[in-house]
Amino acid sequence: MGLLAAGIGAGIVAIAAGLGIGMIGKAATESIARQPEASGDIRGAMLLTSVFIEGVALFCAVICALIIFLG
Amino acid sequence: MGLLAAGIGAGIVAIAAGLGIGMIGKAATESIARQPEASGDIRGAMLLTSVFIEGVALFCAVICALIIFLG
Amino acid sequence: MGLLAAGIGAGIVAIAAGLGIGMIGKAATESIARQPEASGDIRGAMLLTSVFIEGVALFCAVICALIIFLG
Repeated sequence: MGLLAAGIGAGIVAIAAGLGIGMIGKAATESIARQPEASGDIRGAMLLTSVFIEGVALFCAVICALIIFLG
Repeated sequence: MGLLAAGIGAGIVAIAAGLGIGMIGKAATESIARQPEASGDIRGAMLLTSVFIEGVALFCAVICALIIFLG
Repeated sequence: MGLLAAGIGAGIVAIAAGLGIGMIGKAATESIARQPEASGDIRGAMLLTSVFIEGVALFCAVICALIIFLG
Protein backbone atom coordinates (compact mmCIF):
# COMPACT_ATOMS: atom_id res chain seq x y z
CA MET A 1 0.00 0.00 0.00
CA GLY A 2 2.87 2.36 0.85
CA LEU A 3 4.57 1.69 -2.48
CA LEU A 4 1.37 2.46 -4.38
CA ALA A 5 1.05 5.70 -2.43
CA ALA A 6 4.63 6.74 -3.14
CA GLY A 7 4.27 6.05 -6.84
CA ILE A 8 0.97 7.86 -7.32
CA GLY A 9 2.08 10.75 -5.11
CA ALA A 10 5.34 11.24 -7.00
CA GLY A 11 3.45 11.20 -10.29
CA ILE A 12 0.98 13.87 -9.18
CA VAL A 13 3.80 16.01 -7.79
CA ALA A 14 5.55 15.93 -11.16
CA ILE A 15 2.30 16.90 -12.93
CA ALA A 16 1.94 19.84 -10.56
CA ALA A 17 5.42 21.20 -11.19
CA GLY A 18 5.05 20.59 -14.92
CA LEU A 19 1.76 22.50 -15.23
CA GLY A 20 2.71 25.32 -12.88
CA ILE A 21 6.21 26.09 -14.11
CA GLY A 22 5.06 25.35 -17.65
CA MET A 23 2.41 28.08 -17.45
CA ILE A 24 4.96 30.56 -16.12
CA GLY A 25 7.60 29.72 -18.73
CA LYS A 26 5.04 29.97 -21.52
CA ALA A 27 3.84 33.38 -20.37
CA ALA A 28 7.39 34.63 -19.77
CA THR A 29 8.64 33.77 -23.25
CA GLU A 30 5.57 35.35 -24.84
CA SER A 31 5.91 38.44 -22.66
CA ILE A 32 9.57 38.94 -23.52
CA ALA A 33 8.66 38.59 -27.20
CA ARG A 34 6.03 41.32 -26.82
CA GLN A 35 8.14 43.72 -24.72
CA PRO A 36 11.85 42.82 -25.13
CA GLU A 37 13.10 45.88 -23.22
CA ALA A 38 11.33 44.65 -20.06
CA SER A 39 13.01 41.26 -20.17
CA GLY A 40 14.91 41.87 -16.91
CA ASP A 41 11.74 42.51 -14.89
CA ILE A 42 9.95 39.63 -16.61
CA ARG A 43 12.81 37.27 -15.85
CA GLY A 44 12.71 38.34 -12.20
CA ALA A 45 8.99 37.61 -11.86
CA MET A 46 9.40 34.31 -13.69
CA LEU A 47 12.26 33.15 -11.47
CA LEU A 48 10.56 34.07 -8.20
CA THR A 49 7.29 32.27 -8.87
CA SER A 50 9.04 29.23 -10.38
CA VAL A 51 11.19 28.90 -7.27
CA PHE A 52 8.07 28.93 -5.05
CA ILE A 53 6.52 26.06 -7.02
CA GLU A 54 9.81 24.18 -7.09
CA GLY A 55 10.10 24.44 -3.31
CA VAL A 56 6.68 22.94 -2.64
CA ALA A 57 7.16 20.25 -5.30
CA LEU A 58 10.56 19.14 -3.95
CA PHE A 59 9.20 19.04 -0.39
CA CYS A 60 6.28 16.87 -1.52
CA ALA A 61 8.64 14.63 -3.52
CA VAL A 62 10.72 14.12 -0.37
CA ILE A 63 7.53 13.08 1.47
CA CYS A 64 6.90 10.46 -1.23
CA ALA A 65 10.48 9.19 -0.84
CA LEU A 66 10.02 9.00 2.94
CA ILE A 67 6.97 6.79 2.44
CA ILE A 68 9.19 4.15 0.76
CA PHE A 69 11.86 4.16 3.47
CA LEU A 70 9.64 4.47 6.54
CA GLY A 71 6.47 2.79 5.28
CA MET B 1 -3.85 3.46 5.01
CA GLY B 2 -1.86 6.33 6.47
CA LEU B 3 0.81 5.96 3.80
CA LEU B 4 -1.74 6.14 1.00
CA ALA B 5 -3.13 9.27 2.62
CA ALA B 6 0.29 10.90 2.85
CA GLY B 7 1.16 10.12 -0.77
CA ILE B 8 -2.10 11.29 -2.30
CA GLY B 9 -2.23 14.29 0.03
CA ALA B 10 1.30 15.39 -0.91
CA GLY B 11 0.42 15.08 -4.59
CA ILE B 12 -2.72 17.21 -4.27
CA VAL B 13 -0.86 19.83 -2.22
CA ALA B 14 1.74 20.12 -5.00
CA ILE B 15 -1.06 20.50 -7.59
CA ALA B 16 -2.54 23.32 -5.54
CA ALA B 17 0.71 25.26 -5.32
CA GLY B 18 1.53 24.59 -8.97
CA LEU B 19 -1.79 25.81 -10.33
CA GLY B 20 -2.16 28.74 -7.93
CA ILE B 21 1.33 30.20 -8.13
CA GLY B 22 1.47 29.27 -11.82
CA MET B 23 -1.59 31.43 -12.51
CA ILE B 24 -0.05 34.33 -10.62
CA GLY B 25 3.32 34.02 -12.35
CA LYS B 26 1.65 33.85 -15.75
CA ALA B 27 -0.41 36.96 -15.09
CA ALA B 28 2.55 38.84 -13.58
CA THR B 29 4.86 38.30 -16.54
CA GLU B 30 2.13 39.28 -18.99
CA SER B 31 1.24 42.35 -16.91
CA ILE B 32 4.85 43.54 -16.80
CA ALA B 33 5.02 43.13 -20.56
CA ARG B 34 1.89 45.27 -20.97
CA GLN B 35 2.86 47.99 -18.44
CA PRO B 36 6.62 47.80 -17.76
CA GLU B 37 6.68 51.01 -15.68
CA ALA B 38 4.33 49.43 -13.10
CA SER B 39 6.58 46.41 -12.60
CA GLY B 40 7.30 47.32 -8.97
CA ASP B 41 3.63 47.31 -7.95
CA ILE B 42 2.98 44.18 -10.00
CA ARG B 43 5.89 42.37 -8.36
CA GLY B 44 4.56 43.38 -4.92
CA ALA B 45 1.09 41.97 -5.61
CA MET B 46 2.62 38.83 -7.14
CA LEU B 47 4.87 38.20 -4.15
CA LEU B 48 2.17 38.77 -1.54
CA THR B 49 -0.36 36.37 -3.05
CA SER B 50 2.32 33.78 -3.85
CA VAL B 51 3.52 33.81 -0.26
CA PHE B 52 -0.04 33.26 1.00
CA ILE B 53 -0.41 30.17 -1.20
CA GLU B 54 3.08 28.97 -0.29
CA GLY B 55 2.25 29.24 3.41
CA VAL B 56 -0.90 27.13 3.18
CA ALA B 57 0.81 24.59 0.89
CA LEU B 58 3.81 24.11 3.17
CA PHE B 59 1.55 23.80 6.23
CA CYS B 60 -0.53 21.13 4.46
CA ALA B 61 2.63 19.34 3.29
CA VAL B 62 3.84 19.22 6.90
CA ILE B 63 0.49 17.64 7.85
CA CYS B 64 1.12 14.95 5.21
CA ALA B 65 4.61 14.36 6.62
CA LEU B 66 3.17 14.09 10.13
CA ILE B 67 0.85 11.33 8.91
CA ILE B 68 3.89 9.19 8.02
CA PHE B 69 5.64 9.68 11.34
CA LEU B 70 2.63 9.58 13.67
CA GLY B 71 0.23 7.41 11.66
CA MET C 1 -9.58 5.85 8.17
CA GLY C 2 -8.72 8.98 10.16
CA LEU C 3 -5.32 9.23 8.51
CA LEU C 4 -6.82 8.94 5.04
CA ALA C 5 -9.24 11.70 5.97
CA ALA C 6 -6.44 13.97 7.20
CA GLY C 7 -4.30 13.46 4.10
CA ILE C 8 -7.05 13.97 1.53
CA GLY C 9 -8.48 16.85 3.57
CA ALA C 10 -5.13 18.64 3.69
CA GLY C 11 -4.78 18.23 -0.08
CA ILE C 12 -8.22 19.68 -0.80
CA VAL C 13 -7.61 22.58 1.59
CA ALA C 14 -4.44 23.44 -0.32
CA ILE C 15 -6.34 23.24 -3.63
CA ALA C 16 -8.90 25.68 -2.29
CA ALA C 17 -6.33 28.24 -1.19
CA GLY C 18 -4.27 27.77 -4.35
CA LEU C 19 -7.14 28.28 -6.79
CA GLY C 20 -8.80 31.05 -4.78
CA ILE C 21 -5.78 33.19 -4.01
CA GLY C 22 -4.33 32.34 -7.43
CA MET C 23 -7.37 33.85 -9.14
CA ILE C 24 -7.09 36.98 -7.00
CA GLY C 25 -3.37 37.38 -7.66
CA LYS C 26 -3.91 36.92 -11.39
CA ALA C 27 -6.65 39.55 -11.51
CA ALA C 28 -4.73 41.96 -9.28
CA THR C 29 -1.56 41.95 -11.40
CA GLU C 30 -3.58 42.37 -14.59
CA SER C 31 -5.62 45.18 -13.03
CA ILE C 32 -2.52 47.07 -11.91
CA ALA C 33 -1.14 46.74 -15.44
CA ARG C 34 -4.34 48.20 -16.89
CA GLN C 35 -4.72 51.05 -14.35
CA PRO C 36 -1.34 51.64 -12.60
CA GLU C 37 -2.50 54.76 -10.75
CA ALA C 38 -5.12 52.71 -8.86
CA SER C 39 -2.57 50.21 -7.59
CA GLY C 40 -3.09 51.19 -3.94
CA ASP C 41 -6.82 50.47 -4.04
CA ILE C 42 -6.27 47.27 -6.02
CA ARG C 43 -3.70 46.06 -3.50
CA GLY C 44 -6.14 46.77 -0.64
CA ALA C 45 -8.92 44.71 -2.23
CA MET C 46 -6.46 41.93 -3.09
CA LEU C 47 -5.08 41.75 0.46
CA LEU C 48 -8.47 41.72 2.14
CA THR C 49 -9.92 38.90 0.04
CA SER C 50 -6.70 36.88 0.18
CA VAL C 51 -6.61 37.11 3.97
CA PHE C 52 -10.21 35.84 4.16
CA ILE C 53 -9.33 32.76 2.09
CA GLU C 54 -6.12 32.27 4.06
CA GLY C 55 -8.03 32.35 7.34
CA VAL C 56 -10.50 29.67 6.32
CA ALA C 57 -7.75 27.52 4.78
CA LEU C 58 -5.53 27.65 7.87
CA PHE C 59 -8.47 26.85 10.14
CA CYS C 60 -9.37 23.83 8.01
CA ALA C 61 -5.72 22.73 7.89
CA VAL C 62 -5.62 22.81 11.69
CA ILE C 63 -8.72 20.60 11.71
CA CYS C 64 -6.87 18.09 9.49
CA ALA C 65 -3.90 18.18 11.87
CA LEU C 66 -6.21 17.60 14.84
CA ILE C 67 -7.55 14.46 13.13
CA ILE C 68 -4.04 12.93 13.27
CA PHE C 69 -3.46 13.72 16.92
CA LEU C 70 -6.93 13.00 18.29
CA GLY C 71 -8.24 10.48 15.75
